[in-house]
Amino acid sequence: MAKEGNFFGRDIISIRDFTRDQLERLFQSVEDLEKSPNSLDDLLRGKLAALLFFEPSTRTYSSFQIAAATLGMQITGFASPATSSVSKGETLHDTTRMFEGYGADCFVIRHPMPGAARFAAETTDKPVINAGDGSREHPTQAMMDLFTIRKAFGKLDGLKVGILGDLKYGRTASSLAYALSNYDVELTFIAPEALQMRPEVRHFLQQRGTTSKVERDLRNVVGGLDVLYVTRIQKERIPDPTEFEKVKGLYQVNLAALKEAKPSLKVLHPLPRVDELAAELDATTYANYFVQAAAGLPLRTVLMSLVLGGGAR
Amino acid sequence: MAKEGNFFGRDIISIRDFTRDQLERLFQSVEDLEKSPNSLDDLLRGKLAALLFFEPSTRTYSSFQIAAATLGMQITGFASPATSSVSKGETLHDTTRMFEGYGADCFVIRHPMPGAARFAAETTDKPVINAGDGSREHPTQAMMDLFTIRKAFGKLDGLKVGILGDLKYGRTASSLAYALSNYDVELTFIAPEALQMRPEVRHFLQQRGTTSKVERDLRNVVGGLDVLYVTRIQKERIPDPTEFEKVKGLYQVNLAALKEAKPSLKVLHPLPRVDELAAELDATTYANYFVQAAAGLPLRTVLMSLVLGGGAR
Amino acid sequence: MAKEGNFFGRDIISIRDFTRDQLERLFQSVEDLEKSPNSLDDLLRGKLAALLFFEPSTRTYSSFQIAAATLGMQITGFASPATSSVSKGETLHDTTRMFEGYGADCFVIRHPMPGAARFAAETTDKPVINAGDGSREHPTQAMMDLFTIRKAFGKLDGLKVGILGDLKYGRTASSLAYALSNYDVELTFIAPEALQMRPEVRHFLQQRGTTSKVERDLRNVVGGLDVLYVTRIQKERIPDPTEFEKVKGLYQVNLAALKEAKPSLKVLHPLPRVDELAAELDATTYANYFVQAAAGLPLRTVLMSLVLGGGAR
Repeated sequence: MAKEGNFFGRDIISIRDFTRDQLERLFQSVEDLEKSPNSLDDLLRGKLAALLFFEPSTRTYSSFQIAAATLGMQITGFASPATSSVSKGETLHDTTRMFEGYGADCFVIRHPMPGAARFAAETTDKPVINAGDGSREHPTQAMMDLFTIRKAFGKLDGLKVGILGDLKYGRTASSLAYALSNYDVELTFIAPEALQMRPEVRHFLQQRGTTSKVERDLRNVVGGLDVLYVTRIQKERIPDPTEFEKVKGLYQVNLAALKEAKPSLKVLHPLPRVDELAAELDATTYANYFVQAAAGLPLRTVLMSLVLGGGAR
Repeated sequence: MAKEGNFFGRDIISIRDFTRDQLERLFQSVEDLEKSPNSLDDLLRGKLAALLFFEPSTRTYSSFQIAAATLGMQITGFASPATSSVSKGETLHDTTRMFEGYGADCFVIRHPMPGAARFAAETTDKPVINAGDGSREHPTQAMMDLFTIRKAFGKLDGLKVGILGDLKYGRTASSLAYALSNYDVELTFIAPEALQMRPEVRHFLQQRGTTSKVERDLRNVVGGLDVLYVTRIQKERIPDPTEFEKVKGLYQVNLAALKEAKPSLKVLHPLPRVDELAAELDATTYANYFVQAAAGLPLRTVLMSLVLGGGAR
Repeated sequence: MAKEGNFFGRDIISIRDFTRDQLERLFQSVEDLEKSPNSLDDLLRGKLAALLFFEPSTRTYSSFQIAAATLGMQITGFASPATSSVSKGETLHDTTRMFEGYGADCFVIRHPMPGAARFAAETTDKPVINAGDGSREHPTQAMMDLFTIRKAFGKLDGLKVGILGDLKYGRTASSLAYALSNYDVELTFIAPEALQMRPEVRHFLQQRGTTSKVERDLRNVVGGLDVLYVTRIQKERIPDPTEFEKVKGLYQVNLAALKEAKPSLKVLHPLPRVDELAAELDATTYANYFVQAAAGLPLRTVLMSLVLGGGAR
């Protein structure tokens, strides 16, 4: 299905599975949708999307839910394990099999366990979209991140991108790094040593020929960056809470921290933020994170339309 | 937008923001809907309602959800913080901004914090409807309360209304008092001293020229009342649980307590009730609370239609 | 309404309330739907289903939700008490009365308390479908169980059916036994003494003329069975957890346990399963439980269509 960039019927598990060409085709379709906002309405009427969120995520759940509804799909599943009976100990396999028996045409799965989405994909013939699994992958986030940067600069090649915060446990950080390795970028990983990017990610980048360096202090590098991608310290993923307290204050991005930044710098953040990204930036030209968040809806709408075979009209 | 009584595009935060004339126009539209029950069906197709319930409320959530669906709107958000990731500490501002980025055309917000709805309204250009915030305001409840009394008596002017129970912490009690101050009524606040109506409410009434008095014992006044509005002792809002136990038994409304009541007395209650309102009243002509509850649906349907510009057809 | 097998407007509380003739008519309608999968689409457009799940059950909730949506109904209610305000202590009566006031055309109720569904049915004129109440009844599960066995063998009469596991507290086990008593079957209840079928169930079967015997060890009877219905040990229903640990290992159904089984044996399970039914059976011809689970959707779709008067087209 070359004209759809090989998305049809496909599992969306890791951003690493996508070529630059496929990503570009996806972004082109998102731009098309933004130009004609109702062009995909009801494209998938009669189909059923199973949204299985084994961990709540308001932002990701809502965007997939609105996307599916806009495409005309019926929706089933759960927004949180609190409203399901999964606590009874059912396996993921039995859960997907049940929803497949109820006619699910695709799965959108969020799970606290790394690898859960790929495992789920092996249990069903229907496409599985990974909506974030543990500290590992969050491919649709990486897609919307790339799309946002590309839109802001008109290109991705040649950019200097800093990724800051909890790089070890934050799945958006590694997914973004993987995604950017399709382009000619320079990456800087800004984090305390204990939370630096995992070796396998850096190894992957090296193999792809992507330059990356590590840095402990934002101030040393901020002046050269085109993009600063800030991530939340994910308290709930850190085994040692005292470690959290030590690093918390060091990586707060505010006007003072950006004193040396280029005027054209764009700050992104996957949100939700707590105190690592100051509200005082919201009104500046640096702030690109609300635009980034909003991109989640058209991107996920287009992605579902391509995976489920509607294609872009 | 005079013909719509100034509801179009408006935030619905406090019942105090509405004039008698505006309320009368609203009630007229609700009567119109009751006469032609399907007249607003699909009026708002293509619009998106974000229902953000930071505190669960089955009754209020369900009526807004059914109202929005009947109007043809898409619905997003959450019925309870248990199914959202708001526990991660995101601010209300970032949450509304996210849903606005996803295309939300209006917000319906329930929040445990007093003032949350007004704060939310300041963060977004889209209309915000307050579905109850802390111990402060619950404007749509007050609107349906007024509508119910008005329907039972054919008027509001000239009525003697007793409001009983937890007047200090109960938002429906103060919202109702504010609402009734638009009419020529006599109010009696029946509660133990520790739970009496807050001074600022009584001060507001005084400024509006509305007569109100306080009373500790229902039996002293029940014979003169046209309406008895019973409220629940909201255990979860009382700092001192032992205080709760002291007052609990004193304000239970049952057949014995209404021995001296006029035959035409109407008893209202915002529901849910626990034991402050006896089930033995359900089959009597006093009981007006199920009619009152049912009025929530047409009232909220009309309100959303006016706020979002559909108007009454 | 003879042509609809007396389902129109009816409460579905206990499988015991249905005659063989009524069940056969229901099964016929399900077969019709399976032949023409879209034949009931939008049949109930304009009606409102209230799904009140006072206990979460992903499987049962999802199938009713998809069924109602397929029939074109609007849906309200809650998938779990975690997202509702029922914790405030409201009675079931007030809850059903509220949703009736909001225009609910039927109720689907799941409740941890035995008898809750029948009680709810007494509080409302609208049909109530019992989606499982405490350890007592789960009529739609029994209907789909029967339908599945009937489909696998082309008949129910003459079959030897073993029911294994937690027969005392498991509502599916007793509901199935009641249902099968409409047919000429031989039942064997396989369980440790402490979890054997309740006397009132065996008494009911005796009165209906259905042969049943009790057995402690599956191996003694497995060779003669046509159907083995495995149920989960419902930890949350057992007062004494140490009792649970004692029986847990004894009733695990795997390939070794089925060594003496007929090749035509069909294994059913209401799911979710934990470790009482081994995954190694999934790929065998014994496994009938995923087919059984999938039958829940057409069965509940047809049942709602009959109860709400759409009938089969």
